[in-house]
Amino acid sequence: MAAHSRSARPVILGQNQYGKAENRVVKITRDGATHHIKDLNVSVSLSGDMEEVHYSGSNANVLPTDTTKNTVYAFAKEHGIESAEQFGIHLARHFVTSQEPIHRARIRIEEYAWARIETSDADSRPIGADEAKHSFVRKGQETRLTQITYDGSSWEVISGLKDLVVMNSTNSEFWGYIKDKYTTLPEAHDRILATQVSARWRFNWGDDDQEMPHWDTAYEQTKKHMLQAFAETYSLSLQQTLYQMGARIIDNRTEIDEVRFSLPNKHHFLVDLQPFGLKNATADGAVYYAADRPYGLIEATILRDGCEARIPVDLTNL
Amino acid sequence: MAAHSRSARPVILGQNQYGKAENRVVKITRDGATHHIKDLNVSVSLSGDMEEVHYSGSNANVLPTDTTKNTVYAFAKEHGIESAEQFGIHLARHFVTSQEPIHRARIRIEEYAWARIETSDADSRPIGADEAKHSFVRKGQETRLTQITYDGSSWEVISGLKDLVVMNSTNSEFWGYIKDKYTTLPEAHDRILATQVSARWRFNWGDDDQEMPHWDTAYEQTKKHMLQAFAETYSLSLQQTLYQMGARIIDNRTEIDEVRFSLPNKHHFLVDLQPFGLKNATADGAVYYAADRPYGLIEATILRDGCEARIPVDLTNL
Amino acid sequence: MAAHSRSARPVILGQNQYGKAENRVVKITRDGATHHIKDLNVSVSLSGDMEEVHYSGSNANVLPTDTTKNTVYAFAKEHGIESAEQFGIHLARHFVTSQEPIHRARIRIEEYAWARIETSDADSRPIGADEAKHSFVRKGQETRLTQITYDGSSWEVISGLKDLVVMNSTNSEFWGYIKDKYTTLPEAHDRILATQVSARWRFNWGDDDQEMPHWDTAYEQTKKHMLQAFAETYSLSLQQTLYQMGARIIDNRTEIDEVRFSLPNKHHFLVDLQPFGLKNATADGAVYYAADRPYGLIEATILRDGCEARIPVDLTNL
Amino acid sequence: MAAHSRSARPVILGQNQYGKAENRVVKITRDGATHHIKDLNVSVSLSGDMEEVHYSGSNANVLPTDTTKNTVYAFAKEHGIESAEQFGIHLARHFVTSQEPIHRARIRIEEYAWARIETSDADSRPIGADEAKHSFVRKGQETRLTQITYDGSSWEVISGLKDLVVMNSTNSEFWGYIKDKYTTLPEAHDRILATQVSARWRFNWGDDDQEMPHWDTAYEQTKKHMLQAFAETYSLSLQQTLYQMGARIIDNRTEIDEVRFSLPNKHHFLVDLQPFGLKNATADGAVYYAADRPYGLIEATILRDGCEARIPVDLTNL
Repeated sequence: MAAHSRSARPVILGQNQYGKAENRVVKITRDGATHHIKDLNVSVSLSGDMEEVHYSGSNANVLPTDTTKNTVYAFAKEHGIESAEQFGIHLARHFVTSQEPIHRARIRIEEYAWARIETSDADSRPIGADEAKHSFVRKGQETRLTQITYDGSSWEVISGLKDLVVMNSTNSEFWGYIKDKYTTLPEAHDRILATQVSARWRFNWGDDDQEMPHWDTAYEQTKKHMLQAFAETYSLSLQQTLYQMGARIIDNRTEIDEVRFSLPNKHHFLVDLQPFGLKNATADGAVYYAADRPYGLIEATILRDGCEARIPVDLTNL
Repeated sequence: MAAHSRSARPVILGQNQYGKAENRVVKITRDGATHHIKDLNVSVSLSGDMEEVHYSGSNANVLPTDTTKNTVYAFAKEHGIESAEQFGIHLARHFVTSQEPIHRARIRIEEYAWARIETSDADSRPIGADEAKHSFVRKGQETRLTQITYDGSSWEVISGLKDLVVMNSTNSEFWGYIKDKYTTLPEAHDRILATQVSARWRFNWGDDDQEMPHWDTAYEQTKKHMLQAFAETYSLSLQQTLYQMGARIIDNRTEIDEVRFSLPNKHHFLVDLQPFGLKNATADGAVYYAADRPYGLIEATILRDGCEARIPVDLTNL
Repeated sequence: MAAHSRSARPVILGQNQYGKAENRVVKITRDGATHHIKDLNVSVSLSGDMEEVHYSGSNANVLPTDTTKNTVYAFAKEHGIESAEQFGIHLARHFVTSQEPIHRARIRIEEYAWARIETSDADSRPIGADEAKHSFVRKGQETRLTQITYDGSSWEVISGLKDLVVMNSTNSEFWGYIKDKYTTLPEAHDRILATQVSARWRFNWGDDDQEMPHWDTAYEQTKKHMLQAFAETYSLSLQQTLYQMGARIIDNRTEIDEVRFSLPNKHHFLVDLQPFGLKNATADGAVYYAADRPYGLIEATILRDGCEARIPVDLTNL
Repeated sequence: MAAHSRSARPVILGQNQYGKAENRVVKITRDGATHHIKDLNVSVSLSGDMEEVHYSGSNANVLPTDTTKNTVYAFAKEHGIESAEQFGIHLARHFVTSQEPIHRARIRIEEYAWARIETSDADSRPIGADEAKHSFVRKGQETRLTQITYDGSSWEVISGLKDLVVMNSTNSEFWGYIKDKYTTLPEAHDRILATQVSARWRFNWGDDDQEMPHWDTAYEQTKKHMLQAFAETYSLSLQQTLYQMGARIIDNRTEIDEVRFSLPNKHHFLVDLQPFGLKNATADGAVYYAADRPYGLIEATILRDGCEARIPVDLTNL
């Protein structure tokens, strides 16, 4: 982004963006008595020719954030929500193509998944047989994420998830590391490996002329490969597991070129029960203390050979 | 509880309790290559002959909270964790029977559920066929709760859950209410009804001579009945739905005498799209704004006829 | 509360209440160029003749929660917000006296404090000398609380605070406690004592014929006495400190008859630096690890002699 | 960072870093009876020659995160904590210079401020006159932040704060903006402007040969200038206020070259009281609804002319 100064003051405006964050949109689609639900949290961020609003307060080039909110709701009705990615693409295209001062739009979406409630047998139903068709319970597992960026010519789609908590109760070791003056950690040859996955993956789709990936399939498959790689990797370090999770995605999903992980090592410490005359780790299992803080934090990018890394390095501020 | 004064100061000690809160216990049980997981957050609260520690600081009657923590971990190893309720009963009995000054123990437990990760087909497995047997993903839906209270002679077991989010996308109305000077709400004949269930249910088991309920079955069945009643009630008010949820439990689970609900009405407002020339609520669905605050809060106790209400009224502090 | 059954179903409705929770009200009062701010979070809970809405869904006795929200905002304009307590009294009286089916109102209020921003010297001011008169920064320390309950004849006012974090870096010991099989804690003769105060105090004002306390003075003085008692008590246990905090309030504030505390013992553990050849606790200080979980939790009621305890025992759900 | 592939798999490792996050360190310094407190949350992130741990799980180049934790505590004792910045510099230098495979260290620190508790007059003190010297109450306002990055030759220090909530109750307008098909917002000529400041500022100190800034003075002065610019700017848009806040810092603090803000527009909506026969905005003030979501989000970088922007654009993930 070009920086513009003004007047005698030696102060310059750099990168800037604005929009309405966290628009909570729930779309119910009725297919006869059967309803479907899409539950999103949509954040809009626009940038472009915005020097004057910063320098003088002139809003002549500013589409109000309230308008961006209205647009989100109106588009949910007009265009529906096929997937988070598709919805974000609609929005980003609109903002960049409809307002000359807006040169770039970034749409971030969180999606919350719901399942249908299983109803009881027919005898106990007071009002008919269609109940479960419009009754839902929130799954509550991971949050699905996407970020769409459009500059008027090319697209960048980075999807992902957060808060997916996984654990291997064995097949994890940690030894052979550097020992310095401050090292007290004993080596471990059988430990719990647990983490709360935060992941982002970048699609190589970037042009309206290319065929779009099937976003929902991509999500389900990527999550599946990530989980399986976590489960199936005999781990000598969380870094090794992370690499296998990313590589499994790159190996299996040709539409994805880059993956970024932020994996807190959710420590589960074997409790020392010797003072009570108990051996903890025995053939039939063990008792662990699940610690909150501090935690190891392992972060890395896994790339398809020949591709450029573009996902921001920081998925957390800690 | 009797209150005791001391010396000339006209200040008296009333109800008091102490213990270690939020002991995070993870128990892995190994059944050959197949592992099982119990993931609990255990809080201990003890009371009894504790005047002196308040008045003079004498700890002669105080079992340290650190010891109560140690006991939680040691018991997980010595006795295992059959269910949250069973584990709490072991702990409560121990504290009351092993230390004379402790007259009453209350154990509160949160339990987090895990599912097994489905592994890929055999060909892609690098290290054998047993991976999924020790690999887990946190379900992340509701949190299971229990509270065990023991005074040396009788037991009170109140179980429940929190953060179970449910929605009916139709079959809910709200009309015929009082209109006063401050009423602007239009009547609704088809609205979304959504809530985040916080529930507690009290078992009528209270004596070591009675046969104990099967705690895990009770939990699964109670949750099922609650969800089904939510889904199957054509609702004229959230109070009516709440009553049906509680009554369905009382009707079906003879081991439960009382249920308390705290149900926030998670408002989903139809967005006004008329300014954009759009009709929102149409035959094929509608777009809603999911609001955060304020929210209706509906709370009530449902009882088996002839039973006394004993679950505390406040499940929230708002 | 009387319980009412209905029809053949052996299921009874017990205590119930409803209302709008977390109405965020900000009132700006302009006194010429000088502005004042009141920033509240108001929760309304009503109960009374509400059987039918639970049994049949008839809303004939229900004042909508939306109306209670409107009333909160309208009253902030009509009557102003002299103090959280005074505002809650206005609201509670209104709901009980204006609607026959409503027999009891409970208003809970959180209040967030703000300070004025200090402006720069006159030379650098671009637009006049009045800026600081309408510019505020949120203090961000404790949250002030009150709960007003009215049943048409008598009042109960319970005020308090939460999230006030305090620490004594010495003058705290812990020894002489029970040692059982599970005790490993070493005795401490100089430790950090830290807690996050959650407190509620009940006023003895209960009748419109009595003179009302000065609510803001009561709050400031009670907080001051509590802090001073914490600082000035040489502590042999957190229970002793708790008692002194409560007793100091009862001693000094005749308008208060009862205090309830929930005090987590925010553990600060001396780090073992011996492996690195360092002695930690030396004459010039020490380094501590501030732990998150688990934590001791000390709770008690302190009463004026002859008074009845009425503050609910549970200020937390753990 | 160079990317390295391995073997036949077309998968490459990109940027990677690891360390221990959220080490909670409390340092008490005793100056006779007067104690001082430093309360930090320290996160360590290291990178360097780490390919093998990702590819094969060899930890030969890995300093365990547990060791980095130990180092944090040991350094707090050995070197003290003069300021968050100084402490981070000690740590970063140590990791990079003591271990050959580690080429870069990034230390992030959160600091929580404490004030002394004012004690009562001497008569009521039970144990002497020194109480307040070791009794503290957490201020609870903003969290101070710093990030130190060192690659063995040059330093980058980015400090800042978060969660500082400010409000102007007048002198804010918003009008003259683009109106499109989705715009419904009425123009405002007197509104509340409130935000929760998240800011980072980059120092131009980068070399051991340069004189270091006085970190604590820089923090206090930067916060002061930011608050004053917020209070003293007659605002036509939050962007304009943001620019003035940044420019005021650049104007006054020669040690700072760049500032990044993420400013949520915490909307306070005038409540419509007309249905109740009330005019809301009157000469003596008004009542507002403080909304949670959605919110405007205004983000920008302000630079000293001629300097390069290096603070990452995203201070939030929404």
